[in-house]
Amino acid sequence: MNSSLDVAVREGRLSEADRRHLTRAIELGREGWGRVHPNPMVGAVVARDADVLGEGRHEVLGGAHAEVAALSVAGNARGATLYTSLEPCRHHGKTPPCTEAVRAAGVGRVIFWAADPGRDAGGGGGWLRERGVAVDGPFGGWDDWRAENPFFFHDPARPRPFLAIKLAVSLDGRIAPAGGSRVWLTGPEVRREVHRLRAGFDAILVGRGTWEADDPRLTARGPVTPRVPPVPVLLDRRGRANPELRALKEAAQARGIVATSTERAAALRQRLGALADIVAAPTTPHGLDLGALLAELHRHGVTRVLCEGGGRVAASLLATRLVDRIYLFVAPVFIGSEGVPAFPLGAAVRRPEPPAARPAPRDGDPAGTGGSRFPTRGWQPCADPVRFGEDTLIVLDRSS
Amino acid sequence: MNSSLDVAVREGRLSEADRRHLTRAIELGREGWGRVHPNPMVGAVVARDADVLGEGRHEVLGGAHAEVAALSVAGNARGATLYTSLEPCRHHGKTPPCTEAVRAAGVGRVIFWAADPGRDAGGGGGWLRERGVAVDGPFGGWDDWRAENPFFFHDPARPRPFLAIKLAVSLDGRIAPAGGSRVWLTGPEVRREVHRLRAGFDAILVGRGTWEADDPRLTARGPVTPRVPPVPVLLDRRGRANPELRALKEAAQARGIVATSTERAAALRQRLGALADIVAAPTTPHGLDLGALLAELHRHGVTRVLCEGGGRVAASLLATRLVDRIYLFVAPVFIGSEGVPAFPLGAAVRRPEPPAARPAPRDGDPAGTGGSRFPTRGWQPCADPVRFGEDTLIVLDRSS
Repeated sequence: MNSSLDVAVREGRLSEADRRHLTRAIELGREGWGRVHPNPMVGAVVARDADVLGEGRHEVLGGAHAEVAALSVAGNARGATLYTSLEPCRHHGKTPPCTEAVRAAGVGRVIFWAADPGRDAGGGGGWLRERGVAVDGPFGGWDDWRAENPFFFHDPARPRPFLAIKLAVSLDGRIAPAGGSRVWLTGPEVRREVHRLRAGFDAILVGRGTWEADDPRLTARGPVTPRVPPVPVLLDRRGRANPELRALKEAAQARGIVATSTERAAALRQRLGALADIVAAPTTPHGLDLGALLAELHRHGVTRVLCEGGGRVAASLLATRLVDRIYLFVAPVFIGSEGVPAFPLGAAVRRPEPPAARPAPRDGDPAGTGGSRFPTRGWQPCADPVRFGEDTLIVLDRSS
Repeated sequence: MNSSLDVAVREGRLSEADRRHLTRAIELGREGWGRVHPNPMVGAVVARDADVLGEGRHEVLGGAHAEVAALSVAGNARGATLYTSLEPCRHHGKTPPCTEAVRAAGVGRVIFWAADPGRDAGGGGGWLRERGVAVDGPFGGWDDWRAENPFFFHDPARPRPFLAIKLAVSLDGRIAPAGGSRVWLTGPEVRREVHRLRAGFDAILVGRGTWEADDPRLTARGPVTPRVPPVPVLLDRRGRANPELRALKEAAQARGIVATSTERAAALRQRLGALADIVAAPTTPHGLDLGALLAELHRHGVTRVLCEGGGRVAASLLATRLVDRIYLFVAPVFIGSEGVPAFPLGAAVRRPEPPAARPAPRDGDPAGTGGSRFPTRGWQPCADPVRFGEDTLIVLDRSS
């Protein structure tokens, strides 16, 4: 994200103060996590040179947009500059167009980060420019914007949910000791962050191994209270879920979802009654057809899924190439080779070209400069890594 | 590191400006990597409130200390504050005591970060205080100081080298595809960083698998030119090394070292002649006795070893509990379960208490708050994680 702003500063397109205000606008936007979807998270700053006149953010779906909030704090913004993390909208939605508010306030200059791709809302920058406002933006590109607003910049043409996987792994790539004893790899700071993340999704999905062993509640009990609590989704090919499961009994506002095979759906529906919705998918030799299941969940209204494991489900989803984001928490522990591997992946996740087909780098220095690169990239960090207590979070998006 | 300064600011012991100058002093010190050992890396800032009068660092062994360098840039430092990352020394070494230079300059206040543990050099803070200079320090503790100056804050009573392991792993904890085809997991930014790291060590150690397959040069060809180039150390229990190996032929100033078993030492010495020093160690059923080998290397004058693999050597070293630091580069790729595991660790690295002996957390939510923690901690990140291109570096020190 910041690298595109660095480039703009180097090229003289933005001043240092511009960069600071625009970065602040992006930060303000982040506070909308779990509260504004399906709107994007947006923050805005009104400033005159170094002086900040007002800050605002889109706080909750249906409330004021960030630009309007910041202008209202600023009071007199005539001739000032508006920094916003998203191009001002120009459509009448739940609120009037931001473009008209910006123009009415007499703002002299607008600097925006991400382009609004919406057919109706987009194009606000051009609209303002035509009316004599100096406008500069966008900066960066789709990958940067998606890093901040993964749901909003998710390909709208894809008839399936945005899918993120969260896993906690040891330094040697294991998720648990052998024998399935249940222990935390990560510390309390990570658990708090996971609860915060949950608030941004509308469904939390786990495999049978996880709900059988842990009986998790799958609710968002962290620093963000989600506008709409996420729905638990239990994978249950064999139809073994029972009404005592806490995820189903305690699902806050909505009923939980149990995903099972087409064959088991009727019996399960009868057993669970009003406690859960049953979503059915065909089976393959490897288990439920996860692609079909995700499409079915999408038809069911689920748009943002966080899968919390276990490792086998994560590996199966990765093999389908339907995963958009990985939240990988690395704990500073070793488990040993008899532990449960984090991603029991077969060859299916690799790219077609076999690594052996590429010439071995015979200059061979482990830190040398020649040689070929392992071909299975396809993931890229979408943010800087973050330390949570003694653990490290790496967030990866699928390369576009 | 910064958290201890945050605490000091919150408690009113340091001002925001103090924190900024002291942080800058620590940063300046880092530039001594590869140039000042066995001295510590030290940086210093002379300031009057927010205004910086001079900056300095210990640039190379034998050169001016950071405090003297900063005072010399500052010119008139009477009544100013000196910020230094290490307590000013009070001994006559290669240069006169910093304490006397500080006093002669008329500095009014000294703020230092780490305490100097040296019997002769230490105590400079007290010396200055007795002579009427306001002195505040140290901040943080041994773990923080060791993170910055791992060699200087290495336990001097231990008759073996500081040992770091560098490994590049995939997201699923593998270091290479099956079959040993040699490919880079990490990008050019990581290779540059590894060359920089090498400059700080006096020996680069690799196992037989690595030197047989890659024939690496093991030299430091990065942004730092080491004052003394590191010596390559090849593990070679069976005595197979030959005079054509590039690490031996191209060792810059010093001869390389080949470590072999006591039985093979004589034959290998004859074969390699003047090209390499032979260091011998007894064997165990699992290979060379690595503890004995490290002690032998220490007698040979080696004090700072960077092991660059392969995975089996890394795992064996971890099992000996002789590893002080891990540089783990995580590449955004999946290799699959048939790949070579990064740490083929048996039960030996785990703590005595078996995880199964601790009660399973039956409240069981993967992001819950109850439950027990996996017992094998023993490592902690010693710095914030850093992104290098698309890869992530996590640096871990053994918990003290």
